[in-house]
Amino acid sequence: MIGHGFMGAAHSQAWRVAPHFFDLPRRPVMAVLVGRDEHRAEAAAARLGWAEVATDWRTVVERDDVDLVDIVTPGNVHPQVAVAALAAGKHVLCEKPLANSVADAERMAEAARAAAGSGALAMVGFSYRRVPALALARQLIADGLVGQIRQVRAQYLQDWLSDAQAPMTWRLDRDAAGSGALGDIGAHAVDVAQYLTGQQVQGVNALLHTFVGERPLMGESRGLSGAAGTGTGRVTVDDAALFTARLSGGVIASFEATRFATGRKNALRVEVSGSKPGSTVVLEWVVIGRLRVR
Amino acid sequence: MIGHGFMGAAHSQAWRVAPHFFDLPRRPVMAVLVGRDEHRAEAAAARLGWAEVATDWRTVVERDDVDLVDIVTPGNVHPQVAVAALAAGKHVLCEKPLANSVADAERMAEAARAAAGSGALAMVGFSYRRVPALALARQLIADGLVGQIRQVRAQYLQDWLSDAQAPMTWRLDRDAAGSGALGDIGAHAVDVAQYLTGQQVQGVNALLHTFVGERPLMGESRGLSGAAGTGTGRVTVDDAALFTARLSGGVIASFEATRFATGRKNALRVEVSGSKPGSTVVLEWVVIGRLRVR
Amino acid sequence: MIGHGFMGAAHSQAWRVAPHFFDLPRRPVMAVLVGRDEHRAEAAAARLGWAEVATDWRTVVERDDVDLVDIVTPGNVHPQVAVAALAAGKHVLCEKPLANSVADAERMAEAARAAAGSGALAMVGFSYRRVPALALARQLIADGLVGQIRQVRAQYLQDWLSDAQAPMTWRLDRDAAGSGALGDIGAHAVDVAQYLTGQQVQGVNALLHTFVGERPLMGESRGLSGAAGTGTGRVTVDDAALFTARLSGGVIASFEATRFATGRKNALRVEVSGSKPGSTVVLEWVVIGRLRVR
Amino acid sequence: MIGHGFMGAAHSQAWRVAPHFFDLPRRPVMAVLVGRDEHRAEAAAARLGWAEVATDWRTVVERDDVDLVDIVTPGNVHPQVAVAALAAGKHVLCEKPLANSVADAERMAEAARAAAGSGALAMVGFSYRRVPALALARQLIADGLVGQIRQVRAQYLQDWLSDAQAPMTWRLDRDAAGSGALGDIGAHAVDVAQYLTGQQVQGVNALLHTFVGERPLMGESRGLSGAAGTGTGRVTVDDAALFTARLSGGVIASFEATRFATGRKNALRVEVSGSKPGSTVVLEWVVIGRLRVR
Repeated sequence: MIGHGFMGAAHSQAWRVAPHFFDLPRRPVMAVLVGRDEHRAEAAAARLGWAEVATDWRTVVERDDVDLVDIVTPGNVHPQVAVAALAAGKHVLCEKPLANSVADAERMAEAARAAAGSGALAMVGFSYRRVPALALARQLIADGLVGQIRQVRAQYLQDWLSDAQAPMTWRLDRDAAGSGALGDIGAHAVDVAQYLTGQQVQGVNALLHTFVGERPLMGESRGLSGAAGTGTGRVTVDDAALFTARLSGGVIASFEATRFATGRKNALRVEVSGSKPGSTVVLEWVVIGRLRVR
Repeated sequence: MIGHGFMGAAHSQAWRVAPHFFDLPRRPVMAVLVGRDEHRAEAAAARLGWAEVATDWRTVVERDDVDLVDIVTPGNVHPQVAVAALAAGKHVLCEKPLANSVADAERMAEAARAAAGSGALAMVGFSYRRVPALALARQLIADGLVGQIRQVRAQYLQDWLSDAQAPMTWRLDRDAAGSGALGDIGAHAVDVAQYLTGQQVQGVNALLHTFVGERPLMGESRGLSGAAGTGTGRVTVDDAALFTARLSGGVIASFEATRFATGRKNALRVEVSGSKPGSTVVLEWVVIGRLRVR
Repeated sequence: MIGHGFMGAAHSQAWRVAPHFFDLPRRPVMAVLVGRDEHRAEAAAARLGWAEVATDWRTVVERDDVDLVDIVTPGNVHPQVAVAALAAGKHVLCEKPLANSVADAERMAEAARAAAGSGALAMVGFSYRRVPALALARQLIADGLVGQIRQVRAQYLQDWLSDAQAPMTWRLDRDAAGSGALGDIGAHAVDVAQYLTGQQVQGVNALLHTFVGERPLMGESRGLSGAAGTGTGRVTVDDAALFTARLSGGVIASFEATRFATGRKNALRVEVSGSKPGSTVVLEWVVIGRLRVR
Repeated sequence: MIGHGFMGAAHSQAWRVAPHFFDLPRRPVMAVLVGRDEHRAEAAAARLGWAEVATDWRTVVERDDVDLVDIVTPGNVHPQVAVAALAAGKHVLCEKPLANSVADAERMAEAARAAAGSGALAMVGFSYRRVPALALARQLIADGLVGQIRQVRAQYLQDWLSDAQAPMTWRLDRDAAGSGALGDIGAHAVDVAQYLTGQQVQGVNALLHTFVGERPLMGESRGLSGAAGTGTGRVTVDDAALFTARLSGGVIASFEATRFATGRKNALRVEVSGSKPGSTVVLEWVVIGRLRVR
């Protein structure tokens, strides 16, 4: 696994428990954790349950005892690691958003196609596809529950940046993350909409907005660009993304991804309706345990 | 009152009950109902409680015993009636959407400004502003409940056209109605958003779509353009309108107006959030009495 | 109409608008309003639209020009007026709860049965039966939507007494009102449950509770019993009623009626489920226009 | 761990991941899994990650290398294992409901008190107390958010038995499980209500009901009592439990626990209101990922 931040913890949990939930042909071995800072990597490996650590991903992705490379770094590191791992014949699981530019994403897709011939699998980490309710909804829609699909509305709402004093992080830095709410959570909304409808987004009208342009540098964020001793860092990505789209089969869709939705910790909601007047599919998920004060 | 369709019935009810809800300086007298077809106008006047009928609105808006002209016709008739009534010194209440073109709307606004000097009042029928919850929400927001407003999401969802066999009506004819869901219910969503925030829409990205292009002609709809003996009429307005907007004070907003939202008879929902992490304002109203089967 | 308080205003509105909503054989004439205090009755008649007033209901219910007597007084007055009106051959519409004791209610039912022979109709004012969603829900259930009905949960929640300084009223006085939340709003919950299921409540376990035992006397409430110059009146009814029940066809049901449900102005919710795993009927209605702050 | 059914899988997951979520003084070692059938216990141990198996819990609870005994058997086995383990000086975690009778529960509590002196800890597995929203809600209420607490309504709704063909299981057998919905999920509702209010249930009115009295015997359920070659087993517990209660501090509460709530897979909802008119606490949790079709 390359990286060991928030998603590194989530993926470690998944690798650990998967063989106890599913009948897998082989039990995953959590072999090597890669991080640039050896001390921090070692602490993470101990906490997350990895056997050893390394600081150079290039040597790791070529090791004979590595079958699969799991990439959980910021987006700017995805392309080089994924392309190298695929070239070395490894399976690759890469966190979303896939890349920070279309060109990089296309380069990665090309590498995946080339490696597929020798049996290497490549997958983007759209973890929500494993939510059982989503799989069921997709089946119901494919079975004709809503008739011909006409409209989708998808909202992914979080609130963690609504406080202007929430600290700077690499997720708010365009060089590292590529985009903000759009790529981080909007990517899930788009993926779910495409997965449920079987149609691809073809054209969009979009509005991106940044509400808080400077945030305090604290802890990990001190190394970020633009900091220059001021104590604050520049937010160079979108805080919220609102867009409408036409899908390949004629569906129209509205999307919202925001980290400023007060009252919603982490809520994804998708609604699909079609030509059958009687049925609508509504999917919601939230951090388990919802508290409302009213 | 000029016109006597769906909104004519609603306005008649309002004129009748207003003095029993509110302390009014004078009790309204429901004097004259105007309709092109005398027989249908007479039947409507009897049902809705108007004292007499007329077929020519031009003479009515100039009668000395008429103080206020209430316009509930299709949108293409609004401008000429409103301008004439204002010129005759009458107060004017005009249904929304105000007009079918910006030029017409500006002409009407100009007439209203000119008439204001002599005491004539002009008002657009945004009836939802009288919903007590909306007035309270506006006050809470003005008092700072959400801090500086950042995001608005407003949806006005109806389902009455999701059945492709629902008949043609003047509301689906561009010449008469100007637009479809956009002007009919999207107008309310925009008005509520502007009213709650105190900010004006400044720029929009919009997507309009028509799902069902031909509908059966039945009853009243037989006189509509494009019918030509085929038994069907052409839908020349939008069935759904999705748009995002920037408001004058920096708020970003997403809007949806659709008549194809299966599962929603008539539901308006507006959510307002801002810089205070703890508070969000959510307004919903629906036809009273909601039945869900799940 | 005998009485002219809160429900008197509601019934006046209904009599006025009914002929404009429905095709009635005759248009109701709002003839006489009865109140003990002539001045207050006159003010009410002017506001609510009644032609004349009287202070003695006994003479009014025997007038030849009166066809129907509408009783909107506190419950303790219901029996004598209803029995006298039925004896005089009048139709009777009586507000709920029907009476303050089972004995009174049975006496009224007996009078109604006796009068039915001569064509007099008697009805209790369960106005929510006219909510279209309720009629539709009943039909869906009768058509087998949920299979054999098994469970009902019904909640009628209001908040108007949660403030301990809300003033005393006749509705909190057992002599006048008979009971509190139980009869006033619990009666609706029971009626809706019985109406939807076609089954009668057969046995109950109940818990009644009064949270605030003394309330300030203000305005109208000054004449209430127990006031004795202290400035406060004793609450002698239930503030909340929780009960479970078995219905005649085997359904089990839970009920809650409370005037202390903070966050709910006036919300009735009924849920019906049965032997068909896939379908549940959920009915909700609230004061139109719901505002949530979260 | 004694037992390896549904809750055995859940507890195994918890023991495995706890040290990766929390900083624990020692990492738990999943030492021995106990089951009566050695082959099934071995399969479970392999799947759930336990080092070895045993068939006799009596010897296991006395082993020197065992520090903690986790009891996930049917309720009828809880008392003997817990009392023996406590007597042997082990910490004990026992699944809820604690016991199948009050006498057994009191005996266990007595054993726990006696063992506490030597440092043994005893805990009942009310896992929902670890839902962060619940802890936050409790704190908000303790801080005075709702004022003096007045009402609680708690519902734990599942639907897995609404299908009359769902098979017999030990959970529907009184000898093994003690009770049905009441102890299995009603126990959580009561625990959450007591935890949030800091008050104990003092008196209840209850209604228990069994909708489906016979269910098909399949797979594991074949060994259950009452089967006698008929192919069906007798359900001897409640399918639904409705009750109202008074708590020790004056709160009144309504509870519902049912496995026949069509439309709810697994939904716990608790609402707490009090003397402050403006605030209500609403807690909901559901299986993550909710799909509604409407």
